[in-house]
Amino acid sequence: MLCNPPVDIAAELLEGLKHVSTPTATALLMGRGFNHGYLTGIPPQALAPGQVMVGRARTLRFLPLREDLVKTQYASTADRPHRDAIESIEPGEILVIDACGCREAGVVGDMFTRRVLERGGAGIVIDGSVRDLSTIRTVGLPLFCLGQHGAGINRALMSADYQVPVKLANTAVVPGDVLLGDQDGVVVIPPTELAAIVTAGIEHEVQERFTRLKLAEGYALHQAYPPDEQLRPAYLTWRQTQPEFERFPFAFAEP
Amino acid sequence: MLCNPPVDIAAELLEGLKHVSTPTATALLMGRGFNHGYLTGIPPQALAPGQVMVGRARTLRFLPLREDLVKTQYASTADRPHRDAIESIEPGEILVIDACGCREAGVVGDMFTRRVLERGGAGIVIDGSVRDLSTIRTVGLPLFCLGQHGAGINRALMSADYQVPVKLANTAVVPGDVLLGDQDGVVVIPPTELAAIVTAGIEHEVQERFTRLKLAEGYALHQAYPPDEQLRPAYLTWRQTQPEFERFPFAFAEP
Amino acid sequence: MLCNPPVDIAAELLEGLKHVSTPTATALLMGRGFNHGYLTGIPPQALAPGQVMVGRARTLRFLPLREDLVKTQYASTADRPHRDAIESIEPGEILVIDACGCREAGVVGDMFTRRVLERGGAGIVIDGSVRDLSTIRTVGLPLFCLGQHGAGINRALMSADYQVPVKLANTAVVPGDVLLGDQDGVVVIPPTELAAIVTAGIEHEVQERFTRLKLAEGYALHQAYPPDEQLRPAYLTWRQTQPEFERFPFAFAEP
Amino acid sequence: MLCNPPVDIAAELLEGLKHVSTPTATALLMGRGFNHGYLTGIPPQALAPGQVMVGRARTLRFLPLREDLVKTQYASTADRPHRDAIESIEPGEILVIDACGCREAGVVGDMFTRRVLERGGAGIVIDGSVRDLSTIRTVGLPLFCLGQHGAGINRALMSADYQVPVKLANTAVVPGDVLLGDQDGVVVIPPTELAAIVTAGIEHEVQERFTRLKLAEGYALHQAYPPDEQLRPAYLTWRQTQPEFERFPFAFAEP
Amino acid sequence: MLCNPPVDIAAELLEGLKHVSTPTATALLMGRGFNHGYLTGIPPQALAPGQVMVGRARTLRFLPLREDLVKTQYASTADRPHRDAIESIEPGEILVIDACGCREAGVVGDMFTRRVLERGGAGIVIDGSVRDLSTIRTVGLPLFCLGQHGAGINRALMSADYQVPVKLANTAVVPGDVLLGDQDGVVVIPPTELAAIVTAGIEHEVQERFTRLKLAEGYALHQAYPPDEQLRPAYLTWRQTQPEFERFPFAFAEP
Amino acid sequence: MLCNPPVDIAAELLEGLKHVSTPTATALLMGRGFNHGYLTGIPPQALAPGQVMVGRARTLRFLPLREDLVKTQYASTADRPHRDAIESIEPGEILVIDACGCREAGVVGDMFTRRVLERGGAGIVIDGSVRDLSTIRTVGLPLFCLGQHGAGINRALMSADYQVPVKLANTAVVPGDVLLGDQDGVVVIPPTELAAIVTAGIEHEVQERFTRLKLAEGYALHQAYPPDEQLRPAYLTWRQTQPEFERFPFAFAEP
Repeated sequence: MLCNPPVDIAAELLEGLKHVSTPTATALLMGRGFNHGYLTGIPPQALAPGQVMVGRARTLRFLPLREDLVKTQYASTADRPHRDAIESIEPGEILVIDACGCREAGVVGDMFTRRVLERGGAGIVIDGSVRDLSTIRTVGLPLFCLGQHGAGINRALMSADYQVPVKLANTAVVPGDVLLGDQDGVVVIPPTELAAIVTAGIEHEVQERFTRLKLAEGYALHQAYPPDEQLRPAYLTWRQTQPEFERFPFAFAEP
Repeated sequence: MLCNPPVDIAAELLEGLKHVSTPTATALLMGRGFNHGYLTGIPPQALAPGQVMVGRARTLRFLPLREDLVKTQYASTADRPHRDAIESIEPGEILVIDACGCREAGVVGDMFTRRVLERGGAGIVIDGSVRDLSTIRTVGLPLFCLGQHGAGINRALMSADYQVPVKLANTAVVPGDVLLGDQDGVVVIPPTELAAIVTAGIEHEVQERFTRLKLAEGYALHQAYPPDEQLRPAYLTWRQTQPEFERFPFAFAEP
Repeated sequence: MLCNPPVDIAAELLEGLKHVSTPTATALLMGRGFNHGYLTGIPPQALAPGQVMVGRARTLRFLPLREDLVKTQYASTADRPHRDAIESIEPGEILVIDACGCREAGVVGDMFTRRVLERGGAGIVIDGSVRDLSTIRTVGLPLFCLGQHGAGINRALMSADYQVPVKLANTAVVPGDVLLGDQDGVVVIPPTELAAIVTAGIEHEVQERFTRLKLAEGYALHQAYPPDEQLRPAYLTWRQTQPEFERFPFAFAEP
Repeated sequence: MLCNPPVDIAAELLEGLKHVSTPTATALLMGRGFNHGYLTGIPPQALAPGQVMVGRARTLRFLPLREDLVKTQYASTADRPHRDAIESIEPGEILVIDACGCREAGVVGDMFTRRVLERGGAGIVIDGSVRDLSTIRTVGLPLFCLGQHGAGINRALMSADYQVPVKLANTAVVPGDVLLGDQDGVVVIPPTELAAIVTAGIEHEVQERFTRLKLAEGYALHQAYPPDEQLRPAYLTWRQTQPEFERFPFAFAEP
Repeated sequence: MLCNPPVDIAAELLEGLKHVSTPTATALLMGRGFNHGYLTGIPPQALAPGQVMVGRARTLRFLPLREDLVKTQYASTADRPHRDAIESIEPGEILVIDACGCREAGVVGDMFTRRVLERGGAGIVIDGSVRDLSTIRTVGLPLFCLGQHGAGINRALMSADYQVPVKLANTAVVPGDVLLGDQDGVVVIPPTELAAIVTAGIEHEVQERFTRLKLAEGYALHQAYPPDEQLRPAYLTWRQTQPEFERFPFAFAEP
Repeated sequence: MLCNPPVDIAAELLEGLKHVSTPTATALLMGRGFNHGYLTGIPPQALAPGQVMVGRARTLRFLPLREDLVKTQYASTADRPHRDAIESIEPGEILVIDACGCREAGVVGDMFTRRVLERGGAGIVIDGSVRDLSTIRTVGLPLFCLGQHGAGINRALMSADYQVPVKLANTAVVPGDVLLGDQDGVVVIPPTELAAIVTAGIEHEVQERFTRLKLAEGYALHQAYPPDEQLRPAYLTWRQTQPEFERFPFAFAEP
């Protein structure tokens, strides 16, 4: 089965990732040959101002319901993958749900959301819809999904399995992938790529901050974005004044 | 013609319905065999925080325009179903408009919206678009629709008739149906189902409130959602402290 | 309610219409201010080579099903609009069905199709799907629809009423409208427009035949399409050799 | 994991299923509570006149490609689920491919199709596209899919695993399901339902044949579809003249 | 090539246009025979409360990328139409981008947006997506587009040329067209129509203000919308009290 | 402006291209880094059995109509890009029309098609619809497009310019590009890539012919597709018996 190679992820990298925006991470992934990292069309639906979601994927897969299989599934309590997936969440994980892009039923409501939060989960991402969105927004857990519906799962779907590779938007998500989510969306980062993305990403954000200052001073795009040879020395000095320079020195190694 | 059986609706039931959320009503309808109550994809576009829409449907049907029929329709003032529908609205009714899912023209603007409010209407629901949405939001009447367009009706549509069965989203709406709308969407309730939905719905909301408390205390889903045998006695005591218990005693009859 | 003014239609006009193609009729309607005559996206699905469908519309309207109303409808045999519509078809009429553009169920199968043929119906046009398409193709009745599905009506729809204005594709169809269908699609002609369309249409077809000859001789578009001043005299002579000239003299009145 | 209970399937039933059309099987499944059997929007693309596809499902699942995983997959020959799935096909099986509804690449070409035929496969059904469709049509194996594309798998997809539950159209397909395909589409039958569908289906086809004769004699729908009390005795006699009566006696047990 | 006739536009007209809403301008254009002015489905994504966008179009056209042409384009700095278009913006112009309706990449980020603002641009309108939307919202420049994506241009597109006629939504935009944008959307006004739209539009807004007052007093639609013969004298007096009456006297010429 | 570098194209290459199928050309382009060659969703609508379309692109661009510009365009005969484009076609060219993917009007009918044939054109490809499709099929010119509509251009579109880069499906087409079309679709080949595609493509077709023989003998995919080390010598001998070996020796240079 498709899987990620085992990769240990330093807490520092996950912390650093919080200082990278999803557009920056997406662009850096593309520069490294990954064109499908960003989850097209899955916006933040519950996210506080400034809140950032970072964590590793625990996946869950739904299928269109079949009447006999649903009946069997609900007859025992032993095999309901959606509840099992939620009750197995480890601290720091993100529940990543392939709900077939379904807009005809909600697969998560405010109860499931609260339980994910209680178990230490870092967020929920769904290629599908939720119920109770207005209440979910009061829970405090980041949630990204297509939209909302009044009905529960069994109007259209049944859970099939969990911790298998799944599809969200037009992107494959494999258990253990790193996800980054903010106001600008969600991006999926293969664990083997994380160090490179964080290292380059932190400086990229600092440099864009510099470019903004220069654009405000009237510089043209070809001068300031990125800083050209004339501006670069000033940038190298200026970046040392930024908080990331001290906090994440590994991101500023090359001059 | 398809119609609802005549049903008297007690004011208390309509008042009680305001204490039920659309996801709860949708789920209860499904439990009673009605799978199409929720209007998929018709979100609130004008609704104050905490505002709830409850009322009975007065329907209006549009069709794609035909040039000769529009001309005839506008030549006399006697047969413009859209104006007639608005001017016939009774207090407490909701104007329910089948606009063919059209996103190429707006069928209501802030003037029509104001007039519905003035006549005592309780809201407007449209499978279509509106003009002047930013102004409509200042009127105070709940309005649910697909989106907005700058043009008026006659760019694409003509009114055909009113108080006939219509289609919104993928749901039939019959004159006299009860509609409930809140931040989580709109649900259509056959009048014969109203008592059952309100009775079960009020307690359901109270019970979910209890479940939230228990989840916050660390209970697992299979314990608290719904309360299992161990938690149920505590719940039965606790629910008596809730305001609905006194206000809507009929909803708490069974222990 | 929207309706056509009462118009007597001469049999000769319906006969003449069979000599006009749908693209020609569509273009002539546009020249007279009617932009929505052609049923976009409703192709012929059962039509023999050279077969043409001409007749007046008997309309039937479906809505998304509601479980209680369907149950009531099937409990009695008195109020099933779809069967009533079929059993009321008059010779020469076309059954025009607004099935909400539904692709999730079939509203007509080979039995209904046969019955329409037996009653003298001239065709069926559906904004929706059929069952048994491969068998329907053996019946001999022209049928235009979106596609096919294995399931019957009650998977998704219920009949609402008949002989009311309906919507197919993005076009209103009113009882009594004249429909023309061929390999190039279906066009809806208001009865008041029929004489003008047939008169201009027959000559238009003859003239296009002439233009084809001239293009084959190497003439440029601006010379032959339509015939310019130099070619027009030759055309006026040539058209007298065509069968329509004798059969429909009213179409060639002006020189 | 979701699976079918183990069910032995008599060869006679599979043979009998070839005498049932997909619309009939779909309707009978609905009557037994299964509303999603028919694969909406997956038409026959390679099927000879009169050819019928019957067999049990061997499933294969694709996901949107991820660049690193594809590279790993192609580096070894040990883990390419799509080739493994094909080379493991047993005689009489149908290759059922969840290709995510993708229209941006073809997942099967004429080579894969030939190999399925050589291994004794009974057909291919894809929620996705194929390459080489014009050549596939010369192979002789029934194939149902969305459409065609010039590019191969790796333009958009990668194979993930096989013999797991998958999704086609809006239907779950589980390994071992029985599929029936003809000119009218494909229907998925849970193995536990097969006997009931075949038994009722064979007689249903015979009875429809009778109804067609009666409609041709001028009977109305309520008389002949199905045969009413007056026509039923004649039907019971007539059905004995039909070839299925002798060949599948179990289908005509009740009078 | 399609172009607007040269038209001088008085600053007073552009100023007056700020007092007309997009629905009013759309309706007035329709009354003058222009049915495609409003950009259907391109909402404001960055716009302060009360902010209005008015200016003339500088167009930019993207195409789906072709790998060799992109490589050539990025090899030199001489021919990147998107940067050239931005660096050529004149004060008061609006950057109008045909991005093929693409939702798979962002064509503008906060850097480009800042540069447009710095050059005196009045806004950006895109039939496509942006990156960094949350940051763009802090820049202060009005921006209308379909949505957001994490990736930059080269995931899907390449710039082709600028200052040519382009397509946004279902509307042609020609260099020099006047655009008006507010919370209710964007409308494109041919320069030759501007005077008529502004003149009629200002009074139309004033009159709607009057109608609102009368509806609040209980008048029916046919009395107050627009003011009928009885109300009209009162309106003519009242309008003189409104600020526009003095500021834009040309709009109130006829009594 | 985006353009192809000037490339002379040998007649032998165009002739050779007729022996390559569109799926083969698409795959070879992908192997060389071009992922968007195939025109997704633009099938052959008029193509005789065995007919192949090869030629260089003459492009034409439509935009949504604007009422004043259309009026101006039709007032003079000097600036109608669509007629000019057709009347400027050189022998062997293919008319490649960007019609905005429009399904609401036809941009070519049988008259335009005939004229293209008369001028020596090799085919027509449209991201849009045609009129008179049933008649176009009798003309003999290959035509690929989305579908059909009864109305002419001016229901929705106006021609903007020609011989500029355009968009069809999700592919850029530049004047002078080489197009190959057959029953399996259309592929766009940059002129600089033609020699490589033809050289590799001819042998690829021959090799697939060999693979088919071996699959029919029972070889597995990993043996015969492509021929493995054991089969390759036999293939190298066999290919010499094929007609292409003698006719296009340049395609078989390497052993």
